[in-house]
Amino acid sequence: MPAHEREFCDTIGLVLGVDIGATKIAAGVVNAQAEVGASVLLPTRAAEGYAVSRAQVFAAIEHLFSPEIRAIGICAPGPLNPKTGIMVNPPNLPGWRNIPLADEVCRHCGVPCRLENDANAAGLAEARFGAARGFSSVFYVTLSTGIGSGIILDGKIYHGKNGAAAEGGHVTIDYGSETLCACGSRGCIEALASGTAMAARAGMSTEQIGRAAAAGDALALRILDESAEMIGAWLGSVISLLDPDIIVVGGGVSQIGEPLFARLRRIAPARTINQFAYATPIVPAQLGANAGVLGAAAMVLT
Amino acid sequence: MPAHEREFCDTIGLVLGVDIGATKIAAGVVNAQAEVGASVLLPTRAAEGYAVSRAQVFAAIEHLFSPEIRAIGICAPGPLNPKTGIMVNPPNLPGWRNIPLADEVCRHCGVPCRLENDANAAGLAEARFGAARGFSSVFYVTLSTGIGSGIILDGKIYHGKNGAAAEGGHVTIDYGSETLCACGSRGCIEALASGTAMAARAGMSTEQIGRAAAAGDALALRILDESAEMIGAWLGSVISLLDPDIIVVGGGVSQIGEPLFARLRRIAPARTINQFAYATPIVPAQLGANAGVLGAAAMVLT
Repeated sequence: MPAHEREFCDTIGLVLGVDIGATKIAAGVVNAQAEVGASVLLPTRAAEGYAVSRAQVFAAIEHLFSPEIRAIGICAPGPLNPKTGIMVNPPNLPGWRNIPLADEVCRHCGVPCRLENDANAAGLAEARFGAARGFSSVFYVTLSTGIGSGIILDGKIYHGKNGAAAEGGHVTIDYGSETLCACGSRGCIEALASGTAMAARAGMSTEQIGRAAAAGDALALRILDESAEMIGAWLGSVISLLDPDIIVVGGGVSQIGEPLFARLRRIAPARTINQFAYATPIVPAQLGANAGVLGAAAMVLT
Repeated sequence: MPAHEREFCDTIGLVLGVDIGATKIAAGVVNAQAEVGASVLLPTRAAEGYAVSRAQVFAAIEHLFSPEIRAIGICAPGPLNPKTGIMVNPPNLPGWRNIPLADEVCRHCGVPCRLENDANAAGLAEARFGAARGFSSVFYVTLSTGIGSGIILDGKIYHGKNGAAAEGGHVTIDYGSETLCACGSRGCIEALASGTAMAARAGMSTEQIGRAAAAGDALALRILDESAEMIGAWLGSVISLLDPDIIVVGGGVSQIGEPLFARLRRIAPARTINQFAYATPIVPAQLGANAGVLGAAAMVLT
């Protein structure tokens, strides 16, 4: 074992962070300094059903578990209930229906376990260890195949009554829209401006949109402009409602980078009541693919 | 002095609640049981400028002030800064520009003073003494000439970084709308569905809309349907984002009553991600015209 690994194992208060996604399962041993030690990354065999993907999760946990692990934090796609630790019915994980995962992992390993929505966990990670470190109210956004969000107030995830808060992707920005959202409503920002929606309108991936826009491609620029207009108006609404210290934007679509951020920083303030009073910083996420594991760990790190 | 007044004055911990509005100034002596004793109500001479309306406010305070008064709470139209106690530039109170009102009243009377946005104060009053008593997260809405809101979490007003949070009236529900809002943005719920907007579209007051809709008038029903569609979509967005325990709706337009509330209770859940999981109660405000004075008092009642 190399020296830095030994040192890592020597620190007290190790926890396990587990990030269950529709495409990958990531898990890592995390210490109180938010350093990730041993880790596991594997493609989720979601299509093979609950028994198979569940076995993958437990295998990853067993692989990393040791007597030093004090607690386990897990994040996963919603809907789920962080108060009861139950995964309700994530659309992209077939068969995971009303699974009391936190309870099952806790009994399996004999340590406390918490379950959290993946966007909330990533937001907590950015607030504690990443782009929003030192800020007391944080609105975290993940622009990906869908649009997720997390609200972190004074270092804690804001859950709402039913543990279902911060579903910012399902704020309507066009109440009269005919565009159906997976949630059943219409005109949600997710239905109109997610990576999936952008790619469908452009006929190319969001990576390609980013590159083509940078090269001056007219279609890519139009899709980027239109999407930024929508996302900017939506962020402006969030600013009017929550007045957060900072907005952190992560997820695959945020990799478009400056062409996207420059537009959001111009549009969002103009869509708020407070446009002349102050500017809410809109910054890229810093933790990348590690945000899930770190956020899951952060929930159970004291 | 009648017995009940004497009894009121005998209780310890009296405070003064002052509600500065564009059309009226209300103030009252309030005890820890949220009972209003002596009070003052007068039309605001806003059009006569700052010196006149300011003198009215101070006269109301002096009229009610006594050595028993421990503190003074004031609510007023925004924009204002509750952290510094400064009224910034309320559009309907000409001349009130960067006035450090809390500080001035504190020095004038020699007791602590707090300043708060009127919708936040009314929300606090409903959460502590009214329709949302016993609920821990409350979204308060005032449907009036404008649309205001307040977010009350665990009995405290949620302020955000700049004290500017809960400006729910400036959430856009139609990002592509050409309808300008007073805030400078477009498509805000306030610009599209406030009492002013409803009355302009109907060619009659919102009281008349309510009565005519109840009598089956086609135009009134159409305006009510359209407005409820917008307000319902907006409340659905708020539910997805905040998952509050309860939504309380007050303000003049809420006096339309059941024809409005029945529509909102049908539309709002269908515009959330959680439409099948649970129903967020949407209830009328209970404190009516007293909400401002009681909310202002609540800020300084321990």
